[in-house]
Amino acid sequence: MALFSMELDNLRLLFLKELRDLYDAEKQITEALPKLIQAAHHGELKNALQEHLSVTKHQISRLDRIFGQLREKPTGETCKGMKGLIKEGDEMVSSGGSSSTVDAGIISAAQRVEHYEMAGYGTVRTYAQRLGRDDIAQLLQETLNEEKEADERLTEIASSVNVEAKAA
Amino acid sequence: MALFSMELDNLRLLFLKELRDLYDAEKQITEALPKLIQAAHHGELKNALQEHLSVTKHQISRLDRIFGQLREKPTGETCKGMKGLIKEGDEMVSSGGSSSTVDAGIISAAQRVEHYEMAGYGTVRTYAQRLGRDDIAQLLQETLNEEKEADERLTEIASSVNVEAKAA
Repeated sequence: MALFSMELDNLRLLFLKELRDLYDAEKQITEALPKLIQAAHHGELKNALQEHLSVTKHQISRLDRIFGQLREKPTGETCKGMKGLIKEGDEMVSSGGSSSTVDAGIISAAQRVEHYEMAGYGTVRTYAQRLGRDDIAQLLQETLNEEKEADERLTEIASSVNVEAKAA
Repeated sequence: MALFSMELDNLRLLFLKELRDLYDAEKQITEALPKLIQAAHHGELKNALQEHLSVTKHQISRLDRIFGQLREKPTGETCKGMKGLIKEGDEMVSSGGSSSTVDAGIISAAQRVEHYEMAGYGTVRTYAQRLGRDDIAQLLQETLNEEKEADERLTEIASSVNVEAKAA
């Protein structure tokens, strides 16, 4: 069974491994985001993170649908990369400091998370194409587009947050 | 002293914190890359990783130069995000399996690393501009461009590696 295989003998096994990694990553994000939303000061930042939480839940449903189509279970991997990224976000929040600087730190941590997902979804989208599953590739492309949009929105918000932050 | 401050009272402190995070991340990458280079099978992948190792060392020198200009020490942060990303790369290598699938897994892990750095350098480049240090922003932009190029090169190599990998 793919679930218990240790060896990456073929692209399908790697595809499943990475999908499960992303599934776990999304779950970790839904647990971590509420803390960031609470810690954020800027209204637009709070809203963007709140919206991203609901987008993330939708992305998990999309992955559930993909696993259903593949007749595989979504669990079985722990995303160690996301664990580290979330620790960095926690650090930003627990550092304390001026509201605009903490907000800038939250944006920075959130953009690292978005970039992780952009790399991850770009990869599995390409694997799906290679495996002749254009239907699944299209679903993964939708998530990839959402992650890119979230990253761009954070960049926009950062430009006003950074201006508000005291330089030194 | 900034080095011992826990609070992010201003953008300069956050800037230093993030520069130190990236400095530690680059150091971790120089330690991790040799293992990936050894494990990679595809000649072009081996070369790309080898070249990236020398580019990374140059990027560390560039950060040393920046810290010198800021009259600050580069150490004092551990990049927890990179620790997790490198663990993922180790997992790919230790999984074993067919050469092309392992190579695809190495590319996937390396692209997550590149994306982390793209997010990180994009952020500090913007902080440097905001802090009126266009000289430093320009140096950071050079590194950002190199990370983007490395990511694009890995995407190109992936297209031939994925084709070689057995589908299922």
